[in-house]
Amino acid sequence: MNLTDILQKIQSGKLSAAAAAKAIDGMYERDLGFARIDLDRHKRCGIPEVIYCPGKSAPQIAKIMKALIDSGQNILATRATPEQYKIVRRQHPRSKYNKEARTISLMASGKRATAGQIAVVCAGTSDIPVAEEAAVTAEFMGARVTRVYDAGVAGLHRIFKHLSALKQARALVVVAGMEGALPSVVGGLVDRPIIAVPTSVGYGVSLHGVAALLAMLNSCVPGISVVNIDNGFSAGVAAAMIARKEVRDQRSGIGI
Amino acid sequence: MNLTDILQKIQSGKLSAAAAAKAIDGMYERDLGFARIDLDRHKRCGIPEVIYCPGKSAPQIAKIMKALIDSGQNILATRATPEQYKIVRRQHPRSKYNKEARTISLMASGKRATAGQIAVVCAGTSDIPVAEEAAVTAEFMGARVTRVYDAGVAGLHRIFKHLSALKQARALVVVAGMEGALPSVVGGLVDRPIIAVPTSVGYGVSLHGVAALLAMLNSCVPGISVVNIDNGFSAGVAAAMIARKEVRDQRSGIGI
Amino acid sequence: MNLTDILQKIQSGKLSAAAAAKAIDGMYERDLGFARIDLDRHKRCGIPEVIYCPGKSAPQIAKIMKALIDSGQNILATRATPEQYKIVRRQHPRSKYNKEARTISLMASGKRATAGQIAVVCAGTSDIPVAEEAAVTAEFMGARVTRVYDAGVAGLHRIFKHLSALKQARALVVVAGMEGALPSVVGGLVDRPIIAVPTSVGYGVSLHGVAALLAMLNSCVPGISVVNIDNGFSAGVAAAMIARKEVRDQRSGIGI
Amino acid sequence: MNLTDILQKIQSGKLSAAAAAKAIDGMYERDLGFARIDLDRHKRCGIPEVIYCPGKSAPQIAKIMKALIDSGQNILATRATPEQYKIVRRQHPRSKYNKEARTISLMASGKRATAGQIAVVCAGTSDIPVAEEAAVTAEFMGARVTRVYDAGVAGLHRIFKHLSALKQARALVVVAGMEGALPSVVGGLVDRPIIAVPTSVGYGVSLHGVAALLAMLNSCVPGISVVNIDNGFSAGVAAAMIARKEVRDQRSGIGI
Amino acid sequence: MNLTDILQKIQSGKLSAAAAAKAIDGMYERDLGFARIDLDRHKRCGIPEVIYCPGKSAPQIAKIMKALIDSGQNILATRATPEQYKIVRRQHPRSKYNKEARTISLMASGKRATAGQIAVVCAGTSDIPVAEEAAVTAEFMGARVTRVYDAGVAGLHRIFKHLSALKQARALVVVAGMEGALPSVVGGLVDRPIIAVPTSVGYGVSLHGVAALLAMLNSCVPGISVVNIDNGFSAGVAAAMIARKEVRDQRSGIGI
Amino acid sequence: MNLTDILQKIQSGKLSAAAAAKAIDGMYERDLGFARIDLDRHKRCGIPEVIYCPGKSAPQIAKIMKALIDSGQNILATRATPEQYKIVRRQHPRSKYNKEARTISLMASGKRATAGQIAVVCAGTSDIPVAEEAAVTAEFMGARVTRVYDAGVAGLHRIFKHLSALKQARALVVVAGMEGALPSVVGGLVDRPIIAVPTSVGYGVSLHGVAALLAMLNSCVPGISVVNIDNGFSAGVAAAMIARKEVRDQRSGIGI
Amino acid sequence: MNLTDILQKIQSGKLSAAAAAKAIDGMYERDLGFARIDLDRHKRCGIPEVIYCPGKSAPQIAKIMKALIDSGQNILATRATPEQYKIVRRQHPRSKYNKEARTISLMASGKRATAGQIAVVCAGTSDIPVAEEAAVTAEFMGARVTRVYDAGVAGLHRIFKHLSALKQARALVVVAGMEGALPSVVGGLVDRPIIAVPTSVGYGVSLHGVAALLAMLNSCVPGISVVNIDNGFSAGVAAAMIARKEVRDQRSGIGI
Amino acid sequence: MNLTDILQKIQSGKLSAAAAAKAIDGMYERDLGFARIDLDRHKRCGIPEVIYCPGKSAPQIAKIMKALIDSGQNILATRATPEQYKIVRRQHPRSKYNKEARTISLMASGKRATAGQIAVVCAGTSDIPVAEEAAVTAEFMGARVTRVYDAGVAGLHRIFKHLSALKQARALVVVAGMEGALPSVVGGLVDRPIIAVPTSVGYGVSLHGVAALLAMLNSCVPGISVVNIDNGFSAGVAAAMIARKEVRDQRSGIGI
Repeated sequence: MNLTDILQKIQSGKLSAAAAAKAIDGMYERDLGFARIDLDRHKRCGIPEVIYCPGKSAPQIAKIMKALIDSGQNILATRATPEQYKIVRRQHPRSKYNKEARTISLMASGKRATAGQIAVVCAGTSDIPVAEEAAVTAEFMGARVTRVYDAGVAGLHRIFKHLSALKQARALVVVAGMEGALPSVVGGLVDRPIIAVPTSVGYGVSLHGVAALLAMLNSCVPGISVVNIDNGFSAGVAAAMIARKEVRDQRSGIGI
Repeated sequence: MNLTDILQKIQSGKLSAAAAAKAIDGMYERDLGFARIDLDRHKRCGIPEVIYCPGKSAPQIAKIMKALIDSGQNILATRATPEQYKIVRRQHPRSKYNKEARTISLMASGKRATAGQIAVVCAGTSDIPVAEEAAVTAEFMGARVTRVYDAGVAGLHRIFKHLSALKQARALVVVAGMEGALPSVVGGLVDRPIIAVPTSVGYGVSLHGVAALLAMLNSCVPGISVVNIDNGFSAGVAAAMIARKEVRDQRSGIGI
Repeated sequence: MNLTDILQKIQSGKLSAAAAAKAIDGMYERDLGFARIDLDRHKRCGIPEVIYCPGKSAPQIAKIMKALIDSGQNILATRATPEQYKIVRRQHPRSKYNKEARTISLMASGKRATAGQIAVVCAGTSDIPVAEEAAVTAEFMGARVTRVYDAGVAGLHRIFKHLSALKQARALVVVAGMEGALPSVVGGLVDRPIIAVPTSVGYGVSLHGVAALLAMLNSCVPGISVVNIDNGFSAGVAAAMIARKEVRDQRSGIGI
Repeated sequence: MNLTDILQKIQSGKLSAAAAAKAIDGMYERDLGFARIDLDRHKRCGIPEVIYCPGKSAPQIAKIMKALIDSGQNILATRATPEQYKIVRRQHPRSKYNKEARTISLMASGKRATAGQIAVVCAGTSDIPVAEEAAVTAEFMGARVTRVYDAGVAGLHRIFKHLSALKQARALVVVAGMEGALPSVVGGLVDRPIIAVPTSVGYGVSLHGVAALLAMLNSCVPGISVVNIDNGFSAGVAAAMIARKEVRDQRSGIGI
Repeated sequence: MNLTDILQKIQSGKLSAAAAAKAIDGMYERDLGFARIDLDRHKRCGIPEVIYCPGKSAPQIAKIMKALIDSGQNILATRATPEQYKIVRRQHPRSKYNKEARTISLMASGKRATAGQIAVVCAGTSDIPVAEEAAVTAEFMGARVTRVYDAGVAGLHRIFKHLSALKQARALVVVAGMEGALPSVVGGLVDRPIIAVPTSVGYGVSLHGVAALLAMLNSCVPGISVVNIDNGFSAGVAAAMIARKEVRDQRSGIGI
Repeated sequence: MNLTDILQKIQSGKLSAAAAAKAIDGMYERDLGFARIDLDRHKRCGIPEVIYCPGKSAPQIAKIMKALIDSGQNILATRATPEQYKIVRRQHPRSKYNKEARTISLMASGKRATAGQIAVVCAGTSDIPVAEEAAVTAEFMGARVTRVYDAGVAGLHRIFKHLSALKQARALVVVAGMEGALPSVVGGLVDRPIIAVPTSVGYGVSLHGVAALLAMLNSCVPGISVVNIDNGFSAGVAAAMIARKEVRDQRSGIGI
Repeated sequence: MNLTDILQKIQSGKLSAAAAAKAIDGMYERDLGFARIDLDRHKRCGIPEVIYCPGKSAPQIAKIMKALIDSGQNILATRATPEQYKIVRRQHPRSKYNKEARTISLMASGKRATAGQIAVVCAGTSDIPVAEEAAVTAEFMGARVTRVYDAGVAGLHRIFKHLSALKQARALVVVAGMEGALPSVVGGLVDRPIIAVPTSVGYGVSLHGVAALLAMLNSCVPGISVVNIDNGFSAGVAAAMIARKEVRDQRSGIGI
Repeated sequence: MNLTDILQKIQSGKLSAAAAAKAIDGMYERDLGFARIDLDRHKRCGIPEVIYCPGKSAPQIAKIMKALIDSGQNILATRATPEQYKIVRRQHPRSKYNKEARTISLMASGKRATAGQIAVVCAGTSDIPVAEEAAVTAEFMGARVTRVYDAGVAGLHRIFKHLSALKQARALVVVAGMEGALPSVVGGLVDRPIIAVPTSVGYGVSLHGVAALLAMLNSCVPGISVVNIDNGFSAGVAAAMIARKEVRDQRSGIGI
């Protein structure tokens, strides 16, 4: 029973206001005591509720996973430690852990989203965890991902080697720390939407990624947009949204 | 004669290295004395060379326009003053001025890019020049644009009224100054890629837009990416790139 | 013997200057060696001396509690650890510990302040300790508190659900980290004084709460005022002061 | 016809969705071409739409005033120049100009809000425009205002002289630039809610008011909350809201 | 043999350039391998070389102490831990440890500097270590020190109580964290040179003492000067220099 | 009649509370309508009320001067323009203008303070206005001033030339912009209290004097204290206070 | 007579201390009343005293030029306006003005320094004034300069075209605003010392060049060093010093 | 086979595009799984790939060393811990560890670069690790290095003592924390290119080296350039590049 059904039933008198209120509530969230889970987010925002692991115990993560699986959703948990996964796996043996991206995933639902091709480019070895978080997130949302890692501006030949692969992508995530120059260089070579991700990799006045963030926001190449420092997850969501084959319009919203 | 042709002629001995170098050069840029125009940018980056007007005299703008028209390109000039346009118009009577967006445009080429639907949302009246710059830029790149202006978070009903229109768009540009909360609110209601544009509108510790920029980078909604303060142009390019119907792959690159 | 009494006795010659000075001193503070306790604060500032626990040993906390109880005051100790409470409880078995708010309280005095209704709203689960500190503090000062937790701007329905409850309150404390948008959204819906509390919850350029603080200071909604990052205690005091039924005027001051 | 009426008519079939939508719209705002006026704000937020004058022409200000008067509201226009008022006065001869506060006001509606007593305290002569903006705003909202100006911490006797007056107030607005110490000093003497307003008055590393803002946020006195630099208007709104005699509960909200 | 002697011997041919260079060198410093000790600093700057303990092993501290004692100097070691002192004491049983100031001192030389009276005032209990460092340093340089601790602006009566004592001092060191208002308040009451010391005590946007530092630099009271955050040592040196009874003029300098 | 007299009269019944209050008031300040003048500051803070000219009209300055002269005080007005002086001079023909220091002074009172010797050192030609403001202020307070200007660290010989003069001073004011290194260099050569004044002279990331301010606060030489950027006035007051021959103790204070 | 001569004469008794002091003084500087000219800088620092024009009148500039010419030096004046030059030219008709670099130069001395080849690279048209200032300064110091302008990272082909020219240089000055990526890209291609110059060219959070400065300081390419924002002069000096053919060792120094 | 050979073979048909691509790839890098090693960097940038040790396991460091030795290169590993070296030494017994500089080096190749003389100067004992990193790096690149340590501005005699040694150097690295004044002082005495290195040594508002960085960027001495905080490695590379005897021109580049 979706929101429109409920509202029609109120208008036709088939549902009391109180009963409707409760029904609407149940559509939106489940309260586990230690967390309220937003069951509606997938419909409302195009991605399911993703579990951010820091600060949660492994049993709590496992319980949230169960609640989401029960409501027919696929699972993505980010920033998970190997220790958390060890315990989670006992209850969810089909779940998988990606060591570099630090994610737990479980494709519980038969249905999988499909999106087009994206590429994730990063500058140095230390940027890989953030790049992988973006890649795994985009794959979770149905995108096919080309990875071009370790392609810093001090060795431009590595970018040139992969130019034609980059041109196959519908959107690019470009990850860099230190001087944050890579998105500008890539953006001067490839005409695709670029989501730039500054990382906290650096020393001295890198200011934990602020130097890279400022460089990216000041890029001389138009059409580059930027997410928060180290936020591979948000970049992956943005790229997968862009690469989506067809725009879904059937979702319900607040207040409709 | 494109780059591949030239390289094939070198291999087959039909062109000397010196002649090839000069031919390649001519493809890339024209030197007007006071400016070098990048004729290749359209091919390389998917948008023509756009004329940034501040600091240029009106006759210089007119000359650059002529060089671009000669190479078969459409014209977009940003941050143009009415005074600059007055003079430019004499030489280019078909050019048009958009007072709010502060742009001069001239559709010289018969060919027009086509892209899908985007939406531009802004919070307050003072944000409109930035929003219009984004909208006009996206239209220049072939997008159809829905405008939802004056929709701040202190009056949510204005956003709700336009929700179904926003859901028709392939990408959203959301412009806001002050506390910069609008992209988060819109992002919680519509599952489309959102390009957030902070504006320098504000007082006290708005810090000329830095407060809004920080709020947008810290949005709790994943998939929101951000451009520089007041950079409607870059946001318009990003949104139009996302909304492009089909991805062109035929462009040449540096160094091939 | 209050200050006015003492001063009248000087004028009438019943008290020497030296004796008066000592009497005045004893009204104001007690020196425990490791701390001077301000016994007058309740009268002067409307709230008793509150014990800030970090950096104090549990026996020191217990001793300060005893001195305050002896002078007829109720006890509130903030940022207390469970370890500190364990020891404090032995000496003050009637004291209570609130795990989320991290407070120890003891209603030693028979008299309880009475204030009106306030509401405490917060955005995410991680904001709850700060929200609870505000709520417990306000309750300690006699206010009745409605709690609306986990009501972020990415899920506006949670706020809408509680709107009528919020409208019963005399003042609102609104707690949020990350982009700090919640006070603006609530302030656009409810016409009550709002005390906004930024939290240090966030990543990247959240700058340990500065991004949220700036957003709140730049709110487009007038009448929102802001306290320091994570300072639930100060927000609770402010809200309870606003909600006070009648204004007490009988307090003495310096220099009278 | 308020929102509840309209919704009841929809349920009972007396109103079509289209007609209802238009009716709801009219309740909320009037579009003057150059500005949309929020007619609902008074009901929603407890204060009428206030006209912020910078960037508006005097005829535009006059027209907005007319629209608000037509909908039965009193007028407050802030940051108005004498030049703007000169022109506005021709059309609205009953409007009044406050030179220090830089406000235009017009009590068009017979009804006047009533609120209790507040006090506005400021540190130096240069802080007076901000203090007056707070005082005039609070008076506009029905409060009685005690003004204590030029009471900096370098001359404490000026504060002591006015202590008993300050204790009559339901809320205090304390305005200071430079080191911003005044709210802490006042807050140590008077147990009322204090809204602190930092001003941009200062030299060197006053950083246009940021030094004062930081001092106020870090006050050792709990219960002090802070608004944006120079934002006397917001402080006045907050203080008047606190001083309101009775809490109105009858207002409608978005989404019911 | 002082520098003038040496130079006269060069002029009179009694000393070769090489021998003179070596003699001059020995006057200035001793090289312990792990540290070069500036034996001349007392003469040049009015205070002996003070030992900053962090990062040094206890045996190294003991050795530096011995070298300074050998050259007839008194010892002050700052930021010493109890663990460091435990070991140092074995070799220097007459040395003394001040737990609050975290200093080791040893009056090896019979001569003691004499200076006048100063006062050290601080705002809260947590500011005491910095205040004590200032007091002990000034005493080491011969000053008599009045201590007025725990005298924050939220309880002005504590300052008033000690006003006449403060007026006996030749210079005041005023220590405060949080909003840093205390130096302004004291400076408005006492006409003595004030050295203000911001401390890193605070929460939220105290920014580890920067808020207090800014407040002090922006004081509306002229004649207040400021040292680095938590730098009690430098403040103690400054105050003792000011309080010195007679100015010594006999010292040698570079390049004379 | 001083404050002690008044209080004694109250105790002995010779003065009513109301009469006493008025008498006390008149001792403290005179209200000119556009400004309240603190007549007590000389007694309370050791310097008369100094007139800060920016934002005041020349006639207002002249009137304040008259009120101060009437109460027997000498006059110092800072940051005065030649235009302001032109008009002031008409009414106060004996007043003098110092073009470099931008001060107006008038020695109306026969009594002159006497203080010892100080020195003012500055780095570059552009620092001279700030240095002169310090020098003139100190002279106004009775100090004799040695000026050593244009002595930057890039030409150390200029400092060496003046070393013996600097050693005659009781306190030094050292003024520098750009890298702010001069106080450290001077402090390594002369053992006197140093008041460092950063100036806003500089380019690029001098940040209007913040770079110099930070350098001075971080000086490796203990005993250097710092005033706000460009605040020559405050530095002059501090140096003259230090150089005072004998400490006056007879002043009255708030709260006795 | 150089410093060694003077000192030998003192030792041999041919010169009194007073006469020597005066002689040494005259070697170092000439006092024009409005400025002291450092005649020794050329010997001491390898470059003559350069005249920084802002804040100086044209006649003052002309007089300083004359004093320098009299002491046998070549002239370079930076940041000169055309208006200043117009007047200077009357007195110094052989002087030349460089409009882009904003410099006045006059090769008065027959002797010219000789240095090797350097290159100056810049990113955009707006960076040219800073680049030219570097180039003209280096030429003044005897270097031959290759200019490669308008070579931003968004059009890498422009850099590649000039690679072999860049490799001829002994040192490179690389000038860029906005994201400041150019030095990293050039540094990855050419193994020469690179002096990076950030410019204040940019919008939004370019922060007047701070974003570019941070990027350059954080370059992933080792061996890049950075000067202050817009400081083409300092970069030109650095590059010319590096390119000097032979190191001069004959200069005298302070204190010998 | 170098790049030119390969390209000639393509033109003459002796090499297929695919074979050429693979050959070019092998020239540039070797993939060890956990790291891609840039074998071409020595040719391209004048220094071999240097191993940055933090975050790498000792066996990984040993493997990278082996790959570089195999390609005929000398080894420099920076920021190595004694623990890492212990394990590395087992596999590379000829490698050497420098405890102060925290570097591992191994001169595997018979060929050694030769460069001229440089000097490394530092202010305090705590700056030595950064200074040593610069010195060892420059020596690795063939430079002879004069070390002048512990020469802070508070004891200028230490610099004067070493002036003639400093004048022998082709370039100077000057390292300082706290107020960062040393490069300016040295630059006023020696006319050589100066690479200034700020260190994170300091307290309070040293801001982890930002105060020293700002001071150095604002130096009044032209020709000083600055590297990132604590980046001794980059400074050493820059100084050695400057001191190189002859400029090598034979290197290949990208895109040739």
